[in-house]
Amino acid sequence: MNALELDTVRLSADRTCLEILDQTLLPGTVKVLRLSRAEDIREAIRSLRVRGAPAIGVCAGYAMALAASQLPETDYDAFLAAFREKKAVLASARPTAVNLFWALDRMERTVTDHPGDTPAERRERLFREAQAIRDEDVAISRSIGRIGLALLRHGDGVLTHCNAGTLATAKYGTATAPLYAAKEQGWEDLRIYCDETRPLLQGARLTAFELVSAGFDTTLICDNMASSMMAQGLIDIVFVGCDRVARNGDAANKIGTSGVAILARHYGIPFYVCAPSSTIDMSIPDGGAIPIEERPAEEVTEMWYKEPMAPRGVKVRNPAFDVTDHSLITGILTEKGLCAAPYEDAFRALGIGKEA
Amino acid sequence: MNALELDTVRLSADRTCLEILDQTLLPGTVKVLRLSRAEDIREAIRSLRVRGAPAIGVCAGYAMALAASQLPETDYDAFLAAFREKKAVLASARPTAVNLFWALDRMERTVTDHPGDTPAERRERLFREAQAIRDEDVAISRSIGRIGLALLRHGDGVLTHCNAGTLATAKYGTATAPLYAAKEQGWEDLRIYCDETRPLLQGARLTAFELVSAGFDTTLICDNMASSMMAQGLIDIVFVGCDRVARNGDAANKIGTSGVAILARHYGIPFYVCAPSSTIDMSIPDGGAIPIEERPAEEVTEMWYKEPMAPRGVKVRNPAFDVTDHSLITGILTEKGLCAAPYEDAFRALGIGKEA
Repeated sequence: MNALELDTVRLSADRTCLEILDQTLLPGTVKVLRLSRAEDIREAIRSLRVRGAPAIGVCAGYAMALAASQLPETDYDAFLAAFREKKAVLASARPTAVNLFWALDRMERTVTDHPGDTPAERRERLFREAQAIRDEDVAISRSIGRIGLALLRHGDGVLTHCNAGTLATAKYGTATAPLYAAKEQGWEDLRIYCDETRPLLQGARLTAFELVSAGFDTTLICDNMASSMMAQGLIDIVFVGCDRVARNGDAANKIGTSGVAILARHYGIPFYVCAPSSTIDMSIPDGGAIPIEERPAEEVTEMWYKEPMAPRGVKVRNPAFDVTDHSLITGILTEKGLCAAPYEDAFRALGIGKEA
Repeated sequence: MNALELDTVRLSADRTCLEILDQTLLPGTVKVLRLSRAEDIREAIRSLRVRGAPAIGVCAGYAMALAASQLPETDYDAFLAAFREKKAVLASARPTAVNLFWALDRMERTVTDHPGDTPAERRERLFREAQAIRDEDVAISRSIGRIGLALLRHGDGVLTHCNAGTLATAKYGTATAPLYAAKEQGWEDLRIYCDETRPLLQGARLTAFELVSAGFDTTLICDNMASSMMAQGLIDIVFVGCDRVARNGDAANKIGTSGVAILARHYGIPFYVCAPSSTIDMSIPDGGAIPIEERPAEEVTEMWYKEPMAPRGVKVRNPAFDVTDHSLITGILTEKGLCAAPYEDAFRALGIGKEA
C-alpha cells in the first residue's frame, strides 16, 4: 500500500459521504472513516483525524457540498439559511486553521454568486467547487515539487521535520512534494531522514509512514540526532513546511524547525521552507507578531508506556510552533516560484500579497 | 523526599548488602534494591538500574568489599584467587564503562599491596577503600560545583541535557553540581530547564525527578524546544556532563549535546562541559577517535503506548552519543579547575594527563 494512493480526504464515488484516512491511528492502523454529517466531519477535524491546513480546507469544501445535497429542496432563502447553519458547525472545528474559513467562505460564495440556480444546479456547482479546491491544492503541491526538484541532486540526503507530506494536503504535500516529483522522474537514490518530532511524533507516525509506503529510503531519527547526522555528512538539504510566513520571510512551523535551521546554517547545509502562497501573510511584518499555540503539558509528560514519564510537580513548556528567522532560510518555495531574500520584494514580484 | 538524600549507591549499615536505587523505575517508583551477591550487582549494572560512570565505579568498589567479606577465611593465595573470580564477574557487567575497571583494579591493589593482612584486617581495609572511592567521587562533584557556582548569576535560566546529576554519581552529579552548590548557598532563584533527552528520556525521568525533589524551579522541555526557549531569552547558561573528552577538548556526551552547543553559540549563550579529570583522555587527539555506540532501533520505534510509533520497514539511526567540537565549548569544568581553550595546554597546566 502506497500512502500516495490513500487519499487523505476523498468524496465517495456515489457522493454520499466523505472518506477520511484517520491519522490518529497511524502508523499502526490504516482505517478510512466514512462520514456524511457536518457534525461528524467537524469532530474529525477537531480531533486531528484529518490535519494539515491544506487538507482541512479540502475537507471543508467537500463537507459543505455534502451538506447542501442533504438539505431539502426549499426556496433559495431557506436553503441559504440552512446552508449557513452547517457552515457554522464546521467553522467551529478549529479556530486557528485559516484554510478552513477560506474554504467555507468560498463554498458560500458559490451559492450566493448564483441565486438563480435550481436545487440540482446548485448541488452540482458545489460538488464541482469542492473538487476544484482539491484539484488546486494538488496543483500547488505539484508546482512546489517541480520547483524543489531543481534543487535536488542525485544521491542527496534530505532532512525533513514534522509532517508536511501528502497526509497534510490533498496529495504530494509541500515539504515532501520535491521528493515525490523526483520519484515520478524515476529517481531512486534519494535518502530521506525524518525527525520524529516530539511530542506528537508526526515525523515518526506520519512522514515515515508515507515515505516508506511510497518506497523511499527512509531513516527515522530522534530530533536530537539531526546534528549528529549533519556532522557525519549525511544531510545535503533540508525541506520543511510552514504554518505562516511573515512579510519579511520569518516562518512559523512545528516546534523544533528553528533549531534545525540553526544546525543547517552551522554545517553549511541549505534550508528551504515550502509554503503555498496562501500561507504567506503580508499583513504581518515579522515572526514576532505570529501567535504561538501552547499545548497541554500531558503531551510531553504522559504519552509513554501508559504511565508518567516525568515526575509529578515538574513544570512543562509545550509550544507547538516556533519561528525561524528569515536570515536562516536559504529560500522559500511557493507554487508561484522560489523566493530568496529580501523576501518581501520576492513575494511582491510573484504577485503574492496584492490583496494585502 | 529529596533525591539528594536518596543515595544512588550505599552500603547497608550492617555491611551485608549494597542498597541501589533502581533507576529503571524512576520517576514513577522509588525502589531501593538490596543486593549482596556479585552476580546480582553485575546484573543491576548491566540492566542500567545503576548508571553513570562515577556511580558504577562506586558500586563496583562496594561490591568487591562485600564479596571479600563473604569469602571463607582461607590463606592469602586462595583468597586472592576467589577474589579475582568475583572481580571477573563484575568486570563483565558493561564493557565500556571505564570507571568500572578502574575501581575494580583499585580494589584488587588494596589486597595485593597488603599480603600480610589478617582476614579481618583485609575486610576492614576493603570497606575503607570502597568508602574512599565514594568519598572522593563526592569531593570531585563538590569541587566542580564550587567552580561552576562562580559562573552562575542570580535568576539565571540553566539548561541541561540528559542526566549528569546526583543519580549518575555518588552525590551532587557533575552538570548539576553547580546547581546544588547554589542551593546550599541559599540561592532559590535559579530556573532549570531539562531536555527530556530522547530516546531513553534520562532528562525527563531522572534529571527532572532529582531536581524537582531537591526543590528546584524545574521545567521539562522536549529536545526540539531548546531553540525556542533560547530565542525567548529564558536560557542564560548551559551545563552538560560528558563521557569522554579528547586532548583537544572535543567532548563526547549523550546524543543531542552537540546540537545544544550549536544553538547556544547561535544565541550567544555560554556552554560548559562538566568533566571529572578521569574522563579526560589525553591519549586521544580529537573527537573523531572516540567510538560512538549505536543502540537498538527499538528504543526509537517501540517505547510508546506499548505499540509501534513508527512504520514497519523504516530504517532507524540511534547513536547514543555525539561529539561536541571544542570550538563550541566555552569552558570545561574539572574538579581541578576551569579550563579554557587551548584545552590541551589547560589540561596539562592542571596536571591532567601527566600519566598519558
